[in-house]
Amino acid sequence: MSTYFDRLRAAAHARRSQLCVGLDPDPHRIPGGAGGALRHCLKVVEETAEHACCYKPNSAFWEQYGPEGTAALLELRGAVPSEIPVLLDAKRADMGNTMRAYARAAFETLDMDACTIHAYHGSDSIREFTRYAERGVYIVCRTSNPGAVDLQHLDAGGKPLYLRVAELAERHNGAGNVALVVGGTAPEQVREVREASRLPFLIPGIGVQGGDLEASVRAAWNGDLASCLIASSRSVLYAEDPGAAARELKEAINSVLAAV
Amino acid sequence: MSTYFDRLRAAAHARRSQLCVGLDPDPHRIPGGAGGALRHCLKVVEETAEHACCYKPNSAFWEQYGPEGTAALLELRGAVPSEIPVLLDAKRADMGNTMRAYARAAFETLDMDACTIHAYHGSDSIREFTRYAERGVYIVCRTSNPGAVDLQHLDAGGKPLYLRVAELAERHNGAGNVALVVGGTAPEQVREVREASRLPFLIPGIGVQGGDLEASVRAAWNGDLASCLIASSRSVLYAEDPGAAARELKEAINSVLAAV
Repeated sequence: MSTYFDRLRAAAHARRSQLCVGLDPDPHRIPGGAGGALRHCLKVVEETAEHACCYKPNSAFWEQYGPEGTAALLELRGAVPSEIPVLLDAKRADMGNTMRAYARAAFETLDMDACTIHAYHGSDSIREFTRYAERGVYIVCRTSNPGAVDLQHLDAGGKPLYLRVAELAERHNGAGNVALVVGGTAPEQVREVREASRLPFLIPGIGVQGGDLEASVRAAWNGDLASCLIASSRSVLYAEDPGAAARELKEAINSVLAAV
Repeated sequence: MSTYFDRLRAAAHARRSQLCVGLDPDPHRIPGGAGGALRHCLKVVEETAEHACCYKPNSAFWEQYGPEGTAALLELRGAVPSEIPVLLDAKRADMGNTMRAYARAAFETLDMDACTIHAYHGSDSIREFTRYAERGVYIVCRTSNPGAVDLQHLDAGGKPLYLRVAELAERHNGAGNVALVVGGTAPEQVREVREASRLPFLIPGIGVQGGDLEASVRAAWNGDLASCLIASSRSVLYAEDPGAAARELKEAINSVLAAV
């Protein structure tokens, strides 16, 4: 079996796209419960499949619907074209024995190609995910929300905490399956983390959250097709024409890359 | 509606118990899939209900079973006697909009009385949980696993990171519904966090993980009936007689408290 990052790079190459489309249904915007959410997202996948190199359902949005939400997520995952990897945004973190159960849930029960986690529990926790060598593990480093500064920017022995997280992530990359989540609302931090690390980045916060696309892409891109995965959810999911919105975003990213 | 901590204190008083029983079914130890897990845990609840002041299902273990796991967790939650609060151990953390969805999933869809979260995303993230004033929010502070030292013990401006997390938690306790998770495998840290904070503690790691019950209880207890909630999962869940195991643990905690 090829690894997640091989598949991501192949999809990015084939589609000439660095765009990851988030699949985060909001029950206040999509009628019909879990069934309505599923139908909406299936349509978005169909309309955006030629422009996306990855899909990223966020677990929170599916959990709101209870058991039907998990069933819908499973069905959605199965409906994504096999050449496009699916990244579960779950940001899990717990001690070893429990983290093993989270890894099983993400990689076995839901058969996701990759998953986001937090590093707060340290090495024995992270290892429960990274030992799935053919799956991708994105470690949350610097987040895209205002509260990011509260803990992540604390000085931790001469460096901000998010750079310590990046260092810890690097130490767990023996199988080459580790990446970082670095928010596009803070391109200065994207640049700083890129100077410290060659790991692939997932960059959320572009679109509704107001992240700076151009500055983030310039800061993150290092020539590796997996180095700068730009995630957008609401601005595609709720667009009048999701296919057109995805194409525009893909092209906006590509025009920055063409000028690098 | 009374608050979670009122209900926890009432249950602790009525049962003379500080014991929180974890409901974490392992598919390798319990046959029969989600149905088997549910039956096993329903039996454990029945047999331990006079000794437990709280039940704590960990989301990871139920997620392994897919949609049937969530359905089983819902049924289990409904079967716990109404005078005993249920704390969902989910350790969620994401940016504001997504954290709101996690809060809905935990407090509305699953109707849990309390939930564990991570603070890494900072204030706007934490507030999505604390604004449910009648529910309890346990913020992960110092964990019980070996990897806890990797990030949590980093010096963050003159104090270890876990004490910075405790300070941040304190700032979000305006509604009096915030508590901390502090692992019983590190009683020295339990003491240190207690010196810095009057928030209630949830103390996992007693039992299979080898935590020090006596030292942890002495360090955490401050006279508040919610101050020292001792969590044990595997040593009750897989005991030959779960009721007897829960009673023994409850009495062991009480005998430490009697000597304080």
